Amino acid sequence: MEEAAKRYLEKKENEFDIETVPRRLFEVLVSQGYHLHLIEPGRIICSLTVPTRLLKGDNSLHGGATATMVDLIGSAVLYTHGVPASGVSVEINISYLDSAYAGEIEVEAKTLLLGKAIGVVSVELRKKNTGKIIAHGRHSKYLVGSSKM
Amino acid sequence: MEEAAKRYLEKKENEFDIETVPRRLFEVLVSQGYHLHLIEPGRIICSLTVPTRLLKGDNSLHGGATATMVDLIGSAVLYTHGVPASGVSVEINISYLDSAYAGEIEVEAKTLLLGKAIGVVSVELRKKNTGKIIAHGRHSKYLVGSSKM
Amino acid sequence: MEEAAKRYLEKKENEFDIETVPRRLFEVLVSQGYHLHLIEPGRIICSLTVPTRLLKGDNSLHGGATATMVDLIGSAVLYTHGVPASGVSVEINISYLDSAYAGEIEVEAKTLLLGKAIGVVSVELRKKNTGKIIAHGRHSKYLVGSSKM
Amino acid sequence: MEEAAKRYLEKKENEFDIETVPRRLFEVLVSQGYHLHLIEPGRIICSLTVPTRLLKGDNSLHGGATATMVDLIGSAVLYTHGVPASGVSVEINISYLDSAYAGEIEVEAKTLLLGKAIGVVSVELRKKNTGKIIAHGRHSKYLVGSSKM
Repeated sequence: MEEAAKRYLEKKENEFDIETVPRRLFEVLVSQGYHLHLIEPGRIICSLTVPTRLLKGDNSLHGGATATMVDLIGSAVLYTHGVPASGVSVEINISYLDSAYAGEIEVEAKTLLLGKAIGVVSVELRKKNTGKIIAHGRHSKYLVGSSKM
Repeated sequence: MEEAAKRYLEKKENEFDIETVPRRLFEVLVSQGYHLHLIEPGRIICSLTVPTRLLKGDNSLHGGATATMVDLIGSAVLYTHGVPASGVSVEINISYLDSAYAGEIEVEAKTLLLGKAIGVVSVELRKKNTGKIIAHGRHSKYLVGSSKM
Repeated sequence: MEEAAKRYLEKKENEFDIETVPRRLFEVLVSQGYHLHLIEPGRIICSLTVPTRLLKGDNSLHGGATATMVDLIGSAVLYTHGVPASGVSVEINISYLDSAYAGEIEVEAKTLLLGKAIGVVSVELRKKNTGKIIAHGRHSKYLVGSSKM
Repeated sequence: MEEAAKRYLEKKENEFDIETVPRRLFEVLVSQGYHLHLIEPGRIICSLTVPTRLLKGDNSLHGGATATMVDLIGSAVLYTHGVPASGVSVEINISYLDSAYAGEIEVEAKTLLLGKAIGVVSVELRKKNTGKIIAHGRHSKYLVGSSKM
């Protein structure tokens, strides 16, 4: 497991109650190759070395892969508030700002709204070595129950 | 190769000049498991049996997989106009309307704008057996050159 | 009052129960200069002669005015389902496809999802004389109560 | 004219060349009631006392008014880079995070991308007294020429 995640899991006296963050969250991220750098209520910073299978013919990151990161890390950040479930997606939108190629990507997710029923997060992808923004996304979720139907 | 694609490739007298649609488009879609049902200028209908690897823990389709379809089929439809390249993404947005599980998904992409510099398409995902809409997306691309930088 | 709205208000035997559509809806639209052409469950078509105050310096329709139409007509269409309130906005997005100038604009709103908690509509703006699409928007609302907080 | 704008207009030795920011930008914002607090390349902070005409029946800020601010201030920030024109809108999207009522709103616009052809900005609306975020939007523009057709 990542050092950051381990330290985080060992921290006890914090007002940020670790018990409320499901261990499964860390497992999912780490199993998909993410390095966790910061986890606090409403904010996650992590990074990923772009795997070859996410690259298109011209070696740039597939737009769908970017959206998958916005979905995954944007959902993960909602768990840092101690909610039992991150809900179902209502809307995802992404502005593509620069091409990404093989290399390390830093992903920062922040909670914009955690309401009773609706959660909204922003997710920014950056090139880790230069800090240049690759994409900016927002993700809105319906938090209550498992269905918005 | 799909029957629809084959018939389409054999059609010669049509005002819709087949030579302008790169064969690679069909190859990419078919290699990823898509069945092509209709291709005409500004419109593609295809379907896909959801592969297990795109399902989440609760067996519903991953939101990132939906976004990947919007990216892929939304780009493909721009080629039906005979443009040499489908450009780079500016923005993708998706409303998630219903959960999709294992089964066949129909995807319809339509061109909303094909300008000199900007192309915009809508992409709708439906359950094939019921027609129920799973997701609605829009995809904006910058068509000129390979970079918007 | 508009002829279409009047006929609609007089229709009684229809399964579409008129009593469920608040009269205030018609009043608001008509008072803002909209002509109502079609109202049925999940769909409204109306038109508006662009007032001068919505034009920018170059005589094209202000992008904010387009968004206001998406908000207004997109909310109105939810009332056609007999819901007591159209809820609060979660997300609005708009693709701008062509410039609009003085003249008549047709607006068509359709319900994509009417769930227990979430409603999503699409709104298309067209030039009335040519049918050319000016803008395509989607509008997601949280239907329950008056607050998503 | 606003003090901030005046000071800004008088500053000469800065690498941020004031001559490249059209005076009309300040005039438009100030004439619409905006107070300018900060203008630097890629960033504008301003505020507005919500005028009554932008309120809905329940005294909350109209969603279309929020979109108009995203359009206006999002376009204005592109001028701070010295571009001759802020281009035409490709896409605007807005997440509505909290209701705003009568009172002062702070608007912060930041450039996410200023490419040769595409500009993308983020716009955040906050309650001035509490800093609480009301809405977050992104605005993509095509910068070259006056038409994306």
